[in-house]
Amino acid sequence: MKEIINHIQNNKQTYIEELKDFLRIPSISTLSENKKDVAGCAEFVSENLKKIGLNRVEIFKTEGHPIVYGEWLGAPGKPTILVYGHYDVQPVDPIELWNSPPFEPTIKNGKIFARGATDDKGQVFMHFKSVEAFFKNEGSLPVNIKYIIEGEEEIGSENLNVFLKNNTDLLKCDVVLISDSSLYGPGIPTLTYALRGLAYLEVEMIGPNRDLHSGSFGGSVANPINKMAQLISELQDKNGRITIPGFYDDVIKLTKKEKENFKALKFSDKNFAKDLGVGQLEGEKGFTTLERLWARPTLDCNGIIGGFTGKGAKTVIPSKVTAKISMRLVPDQNPNKIAKLFERHLKKIAPKSVKIKVINLHGAYPSLTAVDNPANVAAAKAMSRAFGKETVFMREGGSIPIVTEFSKRLKSPVVLMGLGLNSENLHSPNEHFDLNHFELGIISSAYFMRELSDVN
Amino acid sequence: MKEIINHIQNNKQTYIEELKDFLRIPSISTLSENKKDVAGCAEFVSENLKKIGLNRVEIFKTEGHPIVYGEWLGAPGKPTILVYGHYDVQPVDPIELWNSPPFEPTIKNGKIFARGATDDKGQVFMHFKSVEAFFKNEGSLPVNIKYIIEGEEEIGSENLNVFLKNNTDLLKCDVVLISDSSLYGPGIPTLTYALRGLAYLEVEMIGPNRDLHSGSFGGSVANPINKMAQLISELQDKNGRITIPGFYDDVIKLTKKEKENFKALKFSDKNFAKDLGVGQLEGEKGFTTLERLWARPTLDCNGIIGGFTGKGAKTVIPSKVTAKISMRLVPDQNPNKIAKLFERHLKKIAPKSVKIKVINLHGAYPSLTAVDNPANVAAAKAMSRAFGKETVFMREGGSIPIVTEFSKRLKSPVVLMGLGLNSENLHSPNEHFDLNHFELGIISSAYFMRELSDVN
Repeated sequence: MKEIINHIQNNKQTYIEELKDFLRIPSISTLSENKKDVAGCAEFVSENLKKIGLNRVEIFKTEGHPIVYGEWLGAPGKPTILVYGHYDVQPVDPIELWNSPPFEPTIKNGKIFARGATDDKGQVFMHFKSVEAFFKNEGSLPVNIKYIIEGEEEIGSENLNVFLKNNTDLLKCDVVLISDSSLYGPGIPTLTYALRGLAYLEVEMIGPNRDLHSGSFGGSVANPINKMAQLISELQDKNGRITIPGFYDDVIKLTKKEKENFKALKFSDKNFAKDLGVGQLEGEKGFTTLERLWARPTLDCNGIIGGFTGKGAKTVIPSKVTAKISMRLVPDQNPNKIAKLFERHLKKIAPKSVKIKVINLHGAYPSLTAVDNPANVAAAKAMSRAFGKETVFMREGGSIPIVTEFSKRLKSPVVLMGLGLNSENLHSPNEHFDLNHFELGIISSAYFMRELSDVN
Repeated sequence: MKEIINHIQNNKQTYIEELKDFLRIPSISTLSENKKDVAGCAEFVSENLKKIGLNRVEIFKTEGHPIVYGEWLGAPGKPTILVYGHYDVQPVDPIELWNSPPFEPTIKNGKIFARGATDDKGQVFMHFKSVEAFFKNEGSLPVNIKYIIEGEEEIGSENLNVFLKNNTDLLKCDVVLISDSSLYGPGIPTLTYALRGLAYLEVEMIGPNRDLHSGSFGGSVANPINKMAQLISELQDKNGRITIPGFYDDVIKLTKKEKENFKALKFSDKNFAKDLGVGQLEGEKGFTTLERLWARPTLDCNGIIGGFTGKGAKTVIPSKVTAKISMRLVPDQNPNKIAKLFERHLKKIAPKSVKIKVINLHGAYPSLTAVDNPANVAAAKAMSRAFGKETVFMREGGSIPIVTEFSKRLKSPVVLMGLGLNSENLHSPNEHFDLNHFELGIISSAYFMRELSDVN
């Protein structure tokens, strides 16, 4: 591997220049005026994939923006990696807050500033260059590789989902490799091995058939806001546990090892609370903050509206109140099952003096690739070698819907090898990517192919 | 009294014609384009008060619309009644829903339709005609009388409050008589002897210093909506009792007699619930609906807003939620004291993970003129004689701020002899007043002067 690593290190500048070309293309998927730029960006990806040495590269048209597919399957008997990434980017507004133009990549203090730098052009490009380094030095790869690079991640990946559904054979693989997330901290090799899911519902509660004068009617009739407040508060007990029967049935408990891993991350509650401006943190009793964030389900009211909300006083008992309530789910909770349990429980505990309507707005499955899954083990070794320190395993509190789609359709483990940082302003002005992480990412990618090849 | 009553009955048609002239004046106090009409209406009142036989009538200018004052103090040693009423009216929108023009009084099925018919021109005019009947038949009154008729009731009586404060000697009296409310039902002589007060506050609860992603942060930090829900629900116990310490300290319990009076009104819970479209009524345990409405304090959330309230799903933990919470108060609760108890309690029970701010938006004192107060006893006898059946005593769940002002400034009992009906569309299109009640009101007013005179 020495030659490969040397090659990567020696060519860093060339890679950066190529990345700049990639970043110059304003491939904003949500704006119709950038449609040609998005198509041009697919061309760039396709050309680069050809250039690095793949023997099949194809641009698939969709109802929306094109999907770029590439493959090299010259290592029979060896595992196949499917690299997923996206070449589309977020809009740039508010443009006036950028210190340099978003599509004129600018390097400052070892960081490259441009829209898409960390999300996701910089990160996906690492896996192009690692492959190139192998081909240049050895004429082949230690594994088989496939690429699926889409142009609609920032607008919901609708057409990728269709493509996935219709092309499971084409995309068949042993590991899905995605670099579209973050390191635990600068210079810390990190793998994200689990994501939370989501069940998001809307609850409408109706009391009297019209708004009532609180003087003439107050005291005699259920006030839907008061009742909704009661309902929401009854959904959690004093210890922050959710009271819906069956809610925790499918929750996989954290192993002792996982708890130790989390503890080793030395998360600072104090700094976290300070950043949020709260006097104290709060959550489910018996769990640390990282455990609460990454491995425990939640119940949050995301919005509520009812009655008079203007300035001053209006003495009304409202007819209606609406609340949006969502639950973050953890493996192996099922969003559809949870939505049903939620609705059944709410209808059971709601007082007879009000009517309630529950609407299931959105769901996402949680996902987990075990820490000891061979793919994660290989990835951890690879990153440790590249960074020269031990890889940490973290989870993520949010959902990445596409990850669930890949697991579901392809039945393959997903390795989340994010090289970004949460502080790199993704979706905001002055997005950037640390070029040291860029280089370490290419090296990690190369080691990963080697490690995975050795597993078999 | 026979001649007086006969005179009133014989002159009913004349009174109605005069009332029509009164109703034709579009004295909408809130619209600047009607300012002259309002002034003209004050002139009408003043002229009519002179015409009926008063020896002093004066129009007092104010910062807003004028106040008409009148008096006849020719019965030394006898009690003085102060009649309060208002000559201003509500706007007429939506005009297209009126079956006849709002300022062209139209009689249909024994009811007069016009803006101001029941609120309050028709009702205040009764007390002009009763006095006129006495003067015409006897040349004098059995009591002294004063009138204070304002033109700003529909916009808050701000200038009347100033006038009251500065003219307590002028307005000195033994009884305040107001007809600006309703009978318990058609043909049922009714006196309203108590009103509820109000403490209206706004509670702002702040959690994190910004809106947070519910995936990245959910479970680790207090969600202000969930916490506000908990707080609101903790303000009442399972039996619907308010849990604020000291809240009930000043509540005067209903007497056995009052409870019997309420029961005798044969209020139908079933019809009430049906009208409101609710499956069942709900309120403080151990009390009937009328007791809950008229004699028990309440706690209602009048409005709440926080987080994402648009269409669809947004996974946010909001930084802030705001709720408006009001309490209807009963004699002898003090709105300022209650507001303080509320704030202190909320700050005590609010979790340390959130900040709360409590703003006292509005307060009104409850009021009570005992059923056995000589003024109420005289008024009950008067109405019973006029209607030929026993007068019922009711309370009112809402507040009438001016009533408290009168009690406070003049230290006199207030008799609420409302002759309207809740169904007479006050503040709505097709406002009307039952002309039978108009006649019975004039007769009640005459009897009241006689009864009150006999008390002394």
